[in-house]
Amino acid sequence: MHCKKDEQLQRIINQVKSLTTKGKLADYIPALANENKEHLCASIYYLDKTCVSAGDVEHSFTLQSISKVLSLALVLMDHGEEYVFEHVGMEPTGDPFNSIVKLETNNPSKPLNPMINAGALAVTNMIKGSDKDEQFTRLLNFIKELADSDSITYDTIVAQSEYNTAWLNRSLCYFMKEHDIIKGSVDHLIEVYTKQCSIKMHSIELAKTASVFANNGLHPSTNKRVIPEKIAQLCKTFMVTCGMYNASGEFAIKVGVPAKSGVSGGILAVVPELCGIGIFGPALDDKGNSIAGIGLLERLSANYKLSIF
Amino acid sequence: MHCKKDEQLQRIINQVKSLTTKGKLADYIPALANENKEHLCASIYYLDKTCVSAGDVEHSFTLQSISKVLSLALVLMDHGEEYVFEHVGMEPTGDPFNSIVKLETNNPSKPLNPMINAGALAVTNMIKGSDKDEQFTRLLNFIKELADSDSITYDTIVAQSEYNTAWLNRSLCYFMKEHDIIKGSVDHLIEVYTKQCSIKMHSIELAKTASVFANNGLHPSTNKRVIPEKIAQLCKTFMVTCGMYNASGEFAIKVGVPAKSGVSGGILAVVPELCGIGIFGPALDDKGNSIAGIGLLERLSANYKLSIF
Amino acid sequence: MHCKKDEQLQRIINQVKSLTTKGKLADYIPALANENKEHLCASIYYLDKTCVSAGDVEHSFTLQSISKVLSLALVLMDHGEEYVFEHVGMEPTGDPFNSIVKLETNNPSKPLNPMINAGALAVTNMIKGSDKDEQFTRLLNFIKELADSDSITYDTIVAQSEYNTAWLNRSLCYFMKEHDIIKGSVDHLIEVYTKQCSIKMHSIELAKTASVFANNGLHPSTNKRVIPEKIAQLCKTFMVTCGMYNASGEFAIKVGVPAKSGVSGGILAVVPELCGIGIFGPALDDKGNSIAGIGLLERLSANYKLSIF
Amino acid sequence: MHCKKDEQLQRIINQVKSLTTKGKLADYIPALANENKEHLCASIYYLDKTCVSAGDVEHSFTLQSISKVLSLALVLMDHGEEYVFEHVGMEPTGDPFNSIVKLETNNPSKPLNPMINAGALAVTNMIKGSDKDEQFTRLLNFIKELADSDSITYDTIVAQSEYNTAWLNRSLCYFMKEHDIIKGSVDHLIEVYTKQCSIKMHSIELAKTASVFANNGLHPSTNKRVIPEKIAQLCKTFMVTCGMYNASGEFAIKVGVPAKSGVSGGILAVVPELCGIGIFGPALDDKGNSIAGIGLLERLSANYKLSIF
Repeated sequence: MHCKKDEQLQRIINQVKSLTTKGKLADYIPALANENKEHLCASIYYLDKTCVSAGDVEHSFTLQSISKVLSLALVLMDHGEEYVFEHVGMEPTGDPFNSIVKLETNNPSKPLNPMINAGALAVTNMIKGSDKDEQFTRLLNFIKELADSDSITYDTIVAQSEYNTAWLNRSLCYFMKEHDIIKGSVDHLIEVYTKQCSIKMHSIELAKTASVFANNGLHPSTNKRVIPEKIAQLCKTFMVTCGMYNASGEFAIKVGVPAKSGVSGGILAVVPELCGIGIFGPALDDKGNSIAGIGLLERLSANYKLSIF
Repeated sequence: MHCKKDEQLQRIINQVKSLTTKGKLADYIPALANENKEHLCASIYYLDKTCVSAGDVEHSFTLQSISKVLSLALVLMDHGEEYVFEHVGMEPTGDPFNSIVKLETNNPSKPLNPMINAGALAVTNMIKGSDKDEQFTRLLNFIKELADSDSITYDTIVAQSEYNTAWLNRSLCYFMKEHDIIKGSVDHLIEVYTKQCSIKMHSIELAKTASVFANNGLHPSTNKRVIPEKIAQLCKTFMVTCGMYNASGEFAIKVGVPAKSGVSGGILAVVPELCGIGIFGPALDDKGNSIAGIGLLERLSANYKLSIF
Repeated sequence: MHCKKDEQLQRIINQVKSLTTKGKLADYIPALANENKEHLCASIYYLDKTCVSAGDVEHSFTLQSISKVLSLALVLMDHGEEYVFEHVGMEPTGDPFNSIVKLETNNPSKPLNPMINAGALAVTNMIKGSDKDEQFTRLLNFIKELADSDSITYDTIVAQSEYNTAWLNRSLCYFMKEHDIIKGSVDHLIEVYTKQCSIKMHSIELAKTASVFANNGLHPSTNKRVIPEKIAQLCKTFMVTCGMYNASGEFAIKVGVPAKSGVSGGILAVVPELCGIGIFGPALDDKGNSIAGIGLLERLSANYKLSIF
Repeated sequence: MHCKKDEQLQRIINQVKSLTTKGKLADYIPALANENKEHLCASIYYLDKTCVSAGDVEHSFTLQSISKVLSLALVLMDHGEEYVFEHVGMEPTGDPFNSIVKLETNNPSKPLNPMINAGALAVTNMIKGSDKDEQFTRLLNFIKELADSDSITYDTIVAQSEYNTAWLNRSLCYFMKEHDIIKGSVDHLIEVYTKQCSIKMHSIELAKTASVFANNGLHPSTNKRVIPEKIAQLCKTFMVTCGMYNASGEFAIKVGVPAKSGVSGGILAVVPELCGIGIFGPALDDKGNSIAGIGLLERLSANYKLSIF
C-alpha cells in the first residue's frame, strides 16, 4: 500500500537512531537475533487515510507481545467483559512480564492483567473455536481485518522455534491449570500462542492496526466497525496501564499515549482521534521495549503534544 | 463558598448510596471510625467557575492519601523531575499500598511509585524547608492555594493519633533510610507526613483543588498558575496509573479519569478541560477506596462519557 | 514377616489416636481420600532384628514424599555429592513444599533442597538409566532392597491419577527446564516421579527401610551395605533440616530424630544406632504431616529420650 | 585462664588459613572492619575441664549473632517454651538473616525463627526486666555465668556505632510492633540488642560457653546447672537448623554439629557430650560466616567424626 516518505519524520528518526547502540537484540529467538540492530522505521496512519513513513517500512517483523492486545479485543468480543475478567485481572504490576511469583502469592491465583504472559496465555485460551486451528484462524482473520491486509500470515519458523523452547510459558500454563484458570491441553494452547506471537506484519500494517483503536473501533480504511467502541476503549486503557511491560508507568509519564510493544522491537501506538503509529526497531532496552522506538515516541509526543494526560 | 445544589447529581447519589452498606469505615484511626457510614456527597467545580453539588458538601474530612498527589506536585516544583525520580519510581504495582516486600526484592531498593506509602514518604522527605515545620507550612500553603481557601488547616487529633501508631510507615522509612532513599530524622518525617494526611477540607474545596489539574495547573478561580503545565500533566498520569491503590487498573477501565482516593473516603477526580470533582463517602471497599464514591464516578463517567480513553 | 504386637506401643497409640479427629485426609488423590481417617499404626525395627508393632501394621500405603529421601540416596550413589548439589541446594526453607516463588527469586534458580517438590523432581531427573523405565526400575529395586522385600511394587491407579493431575509439578519442572536444572522430557520425568510416589509398602517394611539409615547404611536384616555411610548420614541430615515439610523446625524441637513424612500419612523415622520406625496415620495436619503420627513420635521421644540433640 | 597450646590443632589451622584470602571483613561496623583479616584461632574446652587451643586465643571479639542463642536460652528460662513460641517461630528459612519479606507474606506475621534478626529482636524484647538496663544486666550476668568469667563486658563503641546505624533492625522492629509481636519502645529494644551484640569475649570463653550446651546445661567448670536440660537441647536444635544463617543446611551436611556464628567472625560450636569449641576468624564468606572457621570445623568433623547425624 502507499505511504508517503516524510522528511520531518525521517529527521526525528535520525535524531534518535543512535539509541540503538545502547540496546540489544532479543537473543533467545534465533529469528530475532538475526535482525539488523540499527534498524529503525516508523509509519503513521491518520484517520483521514493519509499515511506518512520513514525508513525501511515494508520490512516485516513478528508481533510477539503486540498480539496480546489484539487477542484481548477478540476475546472480549467473543465472551464479554464479565466472563473475561473472571479469568484475568485488570491491575498493572511492577513485576516483569514473565514472572510467576504473583500467581502463587495472590489469592485467588488469577493473572494480574492480560498484558503479562500469564494473562495473555489465559486470554488466548479463551479464543472461541472448536479446536486450536479454528482458534488461531479466527485470530488471524481478525488481525487481517485490523491490518486491512489479506496477505498477513505467521512465521512458521519463529512459531516452531518458540514452541520448542517455551518452557517458562508452559510453567505459567500448568500453574494456571492447577488453579482452573486455563482449560484443555497446554500443548495446544502453547501452539496457538506461539503462532499468535509469530504473526508478521510491516510497520504500515501495524500503523493501520493502531488506527482502528485511534478511531474507537471503526476502521478508518474500510469504514467497517471492527471492534465495538467500548472494547476499543478498554484495550487502550490496558495499553496505558500495562502496555510497555514494567516500564508502562514511565512511558505514560514520558509519552502518554496508549501503546503496546513486543520483543521483536515493534511498537503499536495510538493517538486517539488522530492516528495510529507503527514502529520497528529491534534493539531493546532492559525491559524488552524497542529502545529507539521509545525515544522516537518521546520526541513525537513532545513535539506534537500527543499525551492524553 | 457558593455551590448550587443539583437535582440530577442528587439523583445519581441516591442511586448508588446503597453501596455504602457493603463498605466499611476505616477502623484504625478513631476519627475516621466515627464518621457516618452512609454519608455520600459530591461537588463538581467547572472550569467556567460554576459549581454544582449534592449532599452535605460542607462536611470536612482529612485528605489522607489524597495528599500524596499534592505533595508530589510541590516536590516536583521544588526539585524538578530528574531529582525526584532518582528517589521514587514511576511504575504501578499490583501490591497493596502499604507493602514493604518490593523494597527488599527490587534492586535498587526504590519505592515503585509516589502513590504507595513508601513512595509518598520519600516524596514528603523531599519537601524543601529548613526544618519539619517549614516543610509542613510550605505544603499547607500550597494546598490552601489549590483549594482557594485560607482557612484550611490540619486535624491535630487525627495527626497525633496517626503519629502515635504509624508503626508500618516507620518500618518503611527505616528500610528506606538503610538504603539512603530517606534522609534525616524518621520521627520528623513521620510528623510532617501524618500532619499532611490530616489536612482537612470539604468536598467543594476538594473539587476546586481537582479543577486546577483539570485546567493544567492554571487555577480556574484565581487565574494564577499554581502548578506548571508539565507537572500537572505528570500528576494526572500518576493518578491514572496508581491513584486508586491496587484497584487503579480496574478504575481506569471502568471510570477512566485521573483520580486519587484516601482512606478517609475522599476522592479527588479530574475531568481534563472540564471540571474537578470532590467526593466524600467514608464507607470503603476492600482496597481502601470509597465504595459509593467509585460507584458514583462510574455512573458519571458512563452517563457523560468522561473517560479519557 | 514377623513383628510382635507390643502392648506398650499400643497404649501410646491409644493415647494419641484422638488427634486423628483434628486432621484431614489428603483429598486431592482419590486413593488417599478413601483411607480410614482414624487409622494409626506403628512398627519399630531394632538393629538387633527384633520388631515390635501395634495396630493394623500390614496395611499398605503409598510412600509419596517419603520416597524423596530414598531417591536422593540412590542419586547420590549414582553421581556423588558434588554433581547432585550442583542441581539442588542444601538449605531448609520456610516455604510450603510445592512453592515455586523461590525458583524465581533465588539466583541461580536452583531448588533450595531435595525434600521440596522442585528439588525432589530435580533429584528423580538425575536417576541413572537409559530411559524412564530403567530409571524407575532401578529406584524400585533399590527400595526393595531397603525394605528387604521382593514383593514391593507401585500402585498403578494412584500413579495414573497423580500423573493426570500433576499440574503444579509440571509447572515446577518447566520452570526448572527453562533454567537447565531439568533435562529431557518433562512428561517422562513426571511419569517416573508419580510412580515413585506411588510405591507402596506397609509399616513394617517402612520401619525396616528406616533401620538402614539408623545403621548408617548397613542393612540390619541382610547385613549388606545398601548405602555408603557418608550418604546415609547425609540423608539423615536432610531429614532433620527439611524432612517434615515446613514443620521440620518444630519437629526437630519436639521430637528430634531424622524423619520423612508423606501426604499418604506415612512417616519414616530413624533413631540412630537403635531402630527404624514406620508409622501410618492418614489424617494430616495443615502442613501435610500425619497428625497422630507426629503425636506418637513426640510421646516416644519424650518417654525414651530419643532426641539426637 | 589456662588453655594449653595444641600442635595438632595448630596444624589444622595452618591447613585452612589460606581460606581467609577468599573472605571479607564485615565492613559496615568500623570496629569489625579494623580486624586482621588473616586472624584464625580456636579453643576447645572438654567436659573434663581440659582445654586446648591454637592461635591468638585471647583476642577478644564481639558476639554479634552468637548472642542470639544465649538470649534465647535466657528468655526460655524467663517465660517457658509456650509463651516464647507464641512470639517467634521454629522454622528454618532460606531467606537471608535480615530479610523482612516473610514478615509480610506469612500469616500470622511472626518471625520464622529466633536466629534471624527479626526473631532475635523479638526474643530480646522478651528478656525480663523492669527497664532496658535491667534487661541488659540480666543478659550480661547470664553470659558471664556461661563464659565463667566476671570480666565480660560489652564494647561501648561498637554498641553505639551499631545503635546509630541500625536502620534495618528498626524497620524490622516497627513492622513487628505493627503486628503486636514487639512491645514497648523500639529505641530501648535496639539499645539492648546492640549492646547484646557487642558483648565481647575471647575464644576460650566462647569455648566454655559452648561447653555448657555440650553438657546439657550443667556447667562443666562450675558444676552449676546454668540452663535446664530441655532448654539446652532446644538451643542446640536451633543451632543445627538455623545457626549458620542461610548456610545452615550446608553446614549440617558438611559439619553436623550445633553451632552459631556471628558477623564478627566468631563461631560457637558444640560437640554433644564431648566439648565446646570457640573459633575466631573475621574473614567472612558471602553468607556472613567465618570462612576459615567453617573450613576448620569441616576438618575437625571429618578427622574426628564429630557429626551428630
